[in-house]
Amino acid sequence: MSFETIRYAVDEQIATITLHRPHRLNAFTLEMGEEIIAAFDEADGDDNVRAVIVTGESPAFCAGADLSTGADTFNRVADETQSGEFDPEDPKWRDRGGKLNLRIWDSVKPVIGAINGAAVGIGATMILPMDIRLASMEAKFAYPFARRGIVWDGCASWFLPRVVGISTAMDWGLTGRTFNAAEAFESGLVARVVPAEDLMAEARERARLIADKCAPVSVSLMRRMAWRMLGAAHPMEAHRIETQGILHAGMGADAKEGVMSFLEKRQPDFPLRVSEDMPSWYPWWEAGEDAY
Amino acid sequence: MSFETIRYAVDEQIATITLHRPHRLNAFTLEMGEEIIAAFDEADGDDNVRAVIVTGESPAFCAGADLSTGADTFNRVADETQSGEFDPEDPKWRDRGGKLNLRIWDSVKPVIGAINGAAVGIGATMILPMDIRLASMEAKFAYPFARRGIVWDGCASWFLPRVVGISTAMDWGLTGRTFNAAEAFESGLVARVVPAEDLMAEARERARLIADKCAPVSVSLMRRMAWRMLGAAHPMEAHRIETQGILHAGMGADAKEGVMSFLEKRQPDFPLRVSEDMPSWYPWWEAGEDAY
Amino acid sequence: MSFETIRYAVDEQIATITLHRPHRLNAFTLEMGEEIIAAFDEADGDDNVRAVIVTGESPAFCAGADLSTGADTFNRVADETQSGEFDPEDPKWRDRGGKLNLRIWDSVKPVIGAINGAAVGIGATMILPMDIRLASMEAKFAYPFARRGIVWDGCASWFLPRVVGISTAMDWGLTGRTFNAAEAFESGLVARVVPAEDLMAEARERARLIADKCAPVSVSLMRRMAWRMLGAAHPMEAHRIETQGILHAGMGADAKEGVMSFLEKRQPDFPLRVSEDMPSWYPWWEAGEDAY
Repeated sequence: MSFETIRYAVDEQIATITLHRPHRLNAFTLEMGEEIIAAFDEADGDDNVRAVIVTGESPAFCAGADLSTGADTFNRVADETQSGEFDPEDPKWRDRGGKLNLRIWDSVKPVIGAINGAAVGIGATMILPMDIRLASMEAKFAYPFARRGIVWDGCASWFLPRVVGISTAMDWGLTGRTFNAAEAFESGLVARVVPAEDLMAEARERARLIADKCAPVSVSLMRRMAWRMLGAAHPMEAHRIETQGILHAGMGADAKEGVMSFLEKRQPDFPLRVSEDMPSWYPWWEAGEDAY
Repeated sequence: MSFETIRYAVDEQIATITLHRPHRLNAFTLEMGEEIIAAFDEADGDDNVRAVIVTGESPAFCAGADLSTGADTFNRVADETQSGEFDPEDPKWRDRGGKLNLRIWDSVKPVIGAINGAAVGIGATMILPMDIRLASMEAKFAYPFARRGIVWDGCASWFLPRVVGISTAMDWGLTGRTFNAAEAFESGLVARVVPAEDLMAEARERARLIADKCAPVSVSLMRRMAWRMLGAAHPMEAHRIETQGILHAGMGADAKEGVMSFLEKRQPDFPLRVSEDMPSWYPWWEAGEDAY
Repeated sequence: MSFETIRYAVDEQIATITLHRPHRLNAFTLEMGEEIIAAFDEADGDDNVRAVIVTGESPAFCAGADLSTGADTFNRVADETQSGEFDPEDPKWRDRGGKLNLRIWDSVKPVIGAINGAAVGIGATMILPMDIRLASMEAKFAYPFARRGIVWDGCASWFLPRVVGISTAMDWGLTGRTFNAAEAFESGLVARVVPAEDLMAEARERARLIADKCAPVSVSLMRRMAWRMLGAAHPMEAHRIETQGILHAGMGADAKEGVMSFLEKRQPDFPLRVSEDMPSWYPWWEAGEDAY
């Protein structure tokens, strides 16, 4: 596929999405949002993709909304939307960051963020629905919405307290201050900080563990289960789905291969494919609930 | 305003509430609870207040319920309430700590706790609905309810697992043990520990970031959104409110000023006021849901 | 009581459950699951038990499902269940790990995990509904479900993100990698790591704090409240139950003893018993909601 604002490549079962507007520090545009979504659609539909890495073309990760239209930046976005039939109950218009992040959250493949530089605004919310986040020492972060006179975007009011805790989320959100990779690590926003030159190798190493060792159907189911159960009031909800999952998987060819490869101390070769072998009850949530 | 058990002062757009019964280590009384609530009402209604700091008159922060009535301490509280029409479904009586903490949680202004000494029982639950907590090296903490033969108060069974995680909450709650500022920092209960003489300066510095850099309407909306979304089952709930928020704010004067002050590299001067300029759909939750 | 796969002993008001199939690294079997549940039933019904410690017979804690039947390991489990009347909506069959962990979650007594060695698969999910987890330096952990071609068991998709955060849960679950005690500590999975020879002493010291200092009815109520409130959308839910709890406890004999022993600086001697003195509104949730 060919894109204008991003690069998309698959190498050894790992897809890499690179935000690519380096002359604007990879600042986010509506087109970039649509292209990232299209890239995730591509990865989800390709059984050869076992993990997705998202990074930015050096030197930034994503500098946030492109402010080049000045005072009308957010106004313009709002005006566009109002030309449609805006209805708060069933909004045709959506915050573009939220639309994107619901899509990333909905990914069938595991997602690794490799934050190579400044991640600001939507650049800092886009990483929240990813599963594993790694940063280079040059990375810096900010949720500056209150400084711009707007509010959380990208469902950050839901994601950020779940990723780093309510207290850190409030500190970052209410002051809008910039913080560095060390603080991101201490708070749990990123799992590891490495020198810039090692960042992609570290991300690929994590992706390799998934691609080489893990059954793709298991990975997809487990990813969706853990994210979904964040909203479950009772562990019994997990028990119901896990029971169905173990019943389905336990009788399947991947479980046989998983056990035998373990007992024989060899690399597994899982036969099942996400495109064809997901259980009949998947997805287990209401269709349309997630429309984005 | 004049209070008996607290002090309230506004200086450079920062309100400070000081618990003030130093002869009793600022032990909590029903009157103190009512006065703190009145002080938050005052701060919420005053556009000149951009942040609230809560601290205690040295040497303690708040030593918990005043036990000076001995064996009848909690009995007395209960008896008082039972003279009313207690109804478990629609209780006229309320745990006073819960009443207070729901009020702090409901604050329109951001709240910074400056814990200068012992914070015990309700003194340790009162800090949980605050947004940022800082401690002096002399601070110590305890949730000793099980040692007193009672249970969590102040909605701590809801707040504490969300602030420090379920495991730490259980450790502190089930053993009732006292812990120091270092442990409070490691667990995330406080964001920073500083020498006693630097505590108020540190708290005011955080408040200054909010007052000087951030739009007050944005701060209020963002505070309410993040706390509320802790209870949302699905990020789509955040997406709905954030979309409305960005639509409202993006066309507003604060967003223009936020972008222009950034591009012009100057301090912002946000025109909108919490008293008059909150969006029409605010609050977005059921009236009465939060009655306290 | 006499068991085949575990040991159960009560000493100085502390019950210890020791997983005991050392020739198989305490690998989990259906019988072990039933026996652990029976041991928790025993502890819950015995007022002389004030805390429960769960550990493994050296050198392992629990190596996970017993894979000795090879490729048919999970298949066999599934087949057994399908001989019954499986109904996804009201499953007669249940994931055995989930059944066990819902039972541990439901414990009336506080539970301390003393992880003395390898905790893998169900051995690593079994510890999640415990209240305090401690590890020896020899402990290691893995959630290798995706490597075996199955999915989360033991309600781990619900528990693990709540215990260590969604990001760490995803890292461990999607890669299936093994990690050591130090990483378990940094992530908050365990509260402390000690030399192997000190592990049981550390666990007993925590249990002693509960048994010697805390009212058993308070501990039981507080344990259930904090776990349950993880699923509550609004702190008002906590406020309702806490109000009833303080009203009940505040007029009771334990509150009198709790205050007086504090004022008199002596050990408390709480008169109330879990078997007889729980409040009339306990449990406050729907009967049957938790059937396991």
